Amino acid sequence: MGFVPLEEVKVLDFSRVLAGPYCTMMLADLGADVVKVERPGMGDDSRFFPPFVDDHSAYFINVNRGKRSVAIDLSNPKGRELVLELAGKADVLVENFRPGVMDRLGLGYDHVKRMNSRIIYASISLAGQSGPYRDLGGYDLIGQAMGGIMSITGWPNTPPTRVGTAVADILAGLNCAVAVLAALRARDSTGEGQRVDISLVDSVFSADEAYNMMYLAKGRVPKRTGNRYEFVYPYDTFRTEDGWIAIGAGNDKLWGRLCGAMRMPDLIDDPRFRTNEDRLERHGELKGIIEGWTRSKSTREALEALRTAGVPAGPVYDIDEACKDPHIARRMLAEIEQPGIGKMTIVENPIKISPANAGVRGPAPLLGQHNREVLREWLGLRDGKMEELEASGVLGRSFDQKES
Amino acid sequence: MGFVPLEEVKVLDFSRVLAGPYCTMMLADLGADVVKVERPGMGDDSRFFPPFVDDHSAYFINVNRGKRSVAIDLSNPKGRELVLELAGKADVLVENFRPGVMDRLGLGYDHVKRMNSRIIYASISLAGQSGPYRDLGGYDLIGQAMGGIMSITGWPNTPPTRVGTAVADILAGLNCAVAVLAALRARDSTGEGQRVDISLVDSVFSADEAYNMMYLAKGRVPKRTGNRYEFVYPYDTFRTEDGWIAIGAGNDKLWGRLCGAMRMPDLIDDPRFRTNEDRLERHGELKGIIEGWTRSKSTREALEALRTAGVPAGPVYDIDEACKDPHIARRMLAEIEQPGIGKMTIVENPIKISPANAGVRGPAPLLGQHNREVLREWLGLRDGKMEELEASGVLGRSFDQKES
Repeated sequence: MGFVPLEEVKVLDFSRVLAGPYCTMMLADLGADVVKVERPGMGDDSRFFPPFVDDHSAYFINVNRGKRSVAIDLSNPKGRELVLELAGKADVLVENFRPGVMDRLGLGYDHVKRMNSRIIYASISLAGQSGPYRDLGGYDLIGQAMGGIMSITGWPNTPPTRVGTAVADILAGLNCAVAVLAALRARDSTGEGQRVDISLVDSVFSADEAYNMMYLAKGRVPKRTGNRYEFVYPYDTFRTEDGWIAIGAGNDKLWGRLCGAMRMPDLIDDPRFRTNEDRLERHGELKGIIEGWTRSKSTREALEALRTAGVPAGPVYDIDEACKDPHIARRMLAEIEQPGIGKMTIVENPIKISPANAGVRGPAPLLGQHNREVLREWLGLRDGKMEELEASGVLGRSFDQKES
Repeated sequence: MGFVPLEEVKVLDFSRVLAGPYCTMMLADLGADVVKVERPGMGDDSRFFPPFVDDHSAYFINVNRGKRSVAIDLSNPKGRELVLELAGKADVLVENFRPGVMDRLGLGYDHVKRMNSRIIYASISLAGQSGPYRDLGGYDLIGQAMGGIMSITGWPNTPPTRVGTAVADILAGLNCAVAVLAALRARDSTGEGQRVDISLVDSVFSADEAYNMMYLAKGRVPKRTGNRYEFVYPYDTFRTEDGWIAIGAGNDKLWGRLCGAMRMPDLIDDPRFRTNEDRLERHGELKGIIEGWTRSKSTREALEALRTAGVPAGPVYDIDEACKDPHIARRMLAEIEQPGIGKMTIVENPIKISPANAGVRGPAPLLGQHNREVLREWLGLRDGKMEELEASGVLGRSFDQKES
């Protein structure tokens, strides 16, 4: 493996489940040394989330590949002391507890900063570390609900609709990764550590893009329009013989090509559909015409006709179809050798960089697998000291290579 | 304004509409000098996207705040030469044309790298710069369709459903920002420029998180379940007297608190709902019971009872409600003085860093507003030379401060 962009960046990771771990997954795939601090005997909650393979959570494995794990008891003062020593060596600390929890553990920003004035201390929470909701905990669903995205997702006749994936967590995780990398750059220039505060609600709200502006600039409250984009038509999905196809004919030129692909050249000059405004006004009628064509074809046939004509189009994939598509598989699937499982396929990082290397670097850790390795490397502890910490329960059972 | 994390980072931005501009919005808000290269007389397509305020696009303004604009004719060889000189001075170049377009303009990676071996050259496209689909163009809708997210969004009785916001563009933009910052760090260490390749489809696919693993690890194809999360109950939305509320009672402890908040203590030991498995199995029945309670209350009353009891819950906000919430407004709205409009409210950056400064730094540029300013600063051009470029149409009409 060649040069990794985050060579030498040490990340101490207290985060659990998805938002924080997705952030540190990005950092680990980019080459950072990410050490998860987990609760002995339990670990990250998501170790107990389905789907399972041989009693190991594939949910956990996918998001935590390439990280190391230390199992340290934070309810024990000696455990907290040990963790503070690790924080003293770290470039970055990431946590996504409910605001206040790290403070109560004696691991809050002010405390850690006194140990390490150069640290980037990043927190992800439902609604952020300031403002009236700063004490609220919450999950992805609550972040989606309060961020407004559900109100514009779904159909005119359905309730506000949750995005199927945990998009509040993912957006917050990505914002946190951007923030950490920018903060590292500021730290390297000024020598001064930085506090990063990311909120699920903020992250979703920012992603609402033009819909916020509709209200802020025009006082209009956007509604759910299903798969149709309300400002351009045809930009929608259509039934085919065997599935669904998405077509984005976003301007007059593409509309002309679409008419050509459907072998309906008369439609181009049809006064009902001449401009985008005309097509928007009669979108229901036009959907019927286009779907009349797509329904007579398989998705593959319709796609071929559309792509040949240069009309942006794509299949609406189920998850299995996406995973089996050779293009996606080639760019986005990775194989790891996972302890306790063996060979296993997970999802590759969406960032492609060259000539530097980024991407999945190894399996996910067993709980406490790297206790001794990390404490030796980061703190120079000797085996005798570690046996003592293990005996007193400060360190969870160690799974050093030789023992696992 | 204090120290900005991306002080001294020069970004030459050829990107249009949303995915690329959202990336460079993040960079500009973090302090980078982002110069948009736009087509004279036209500019970024999104300058013509609704909503409009006094003939200016609020869509464009929100995503392009804090950037500068130069209007340069790339169909003119002198324009391309000028742009190559700018690329020679840039740390980062971002573009989201269909793959191949920059090459045909003589502005492809290999060409630019010869001018500037230290540049980070970042491209965003539908399906990436490699693999069988590398020549495909496409919009957010196509990225969502092929990335699988639509198949898990929506209701058992609806078609696969588009995420209301352009989430493929936003995710790709954020991945690109992460990649650019990581690549800058690699460049600073090795002196070697980097190529970044981001795809809408990859970005969405990575965000499918555990749903991909369901298929990859278990061969199961995830289905649409509406607002209910299929592994935990109650984790869903419920009708209130005046709206909807999201409740995430993700474990037995929170379930107990929810029963308390509803004043239904008997429910805790009700054998029908004792474990999460029981609650999942009877989720329809349980939804009826909880909704019986929420329907008798306003969202505000239900929220107060739930928050007091420590149950994660939140209102399902429409866009106007999100914008008007004092907590969200305080963290997430910013005011700018926009040329041609005056005071205007836009969306603040979701990244909060301190003591370094990040966030909205100024208005969006008029087309070509900074022609002279940028060419003077980056290339040291003199007024005479610029008048010549203007006269020959290489530079669009300039809106220098003094003229606007």
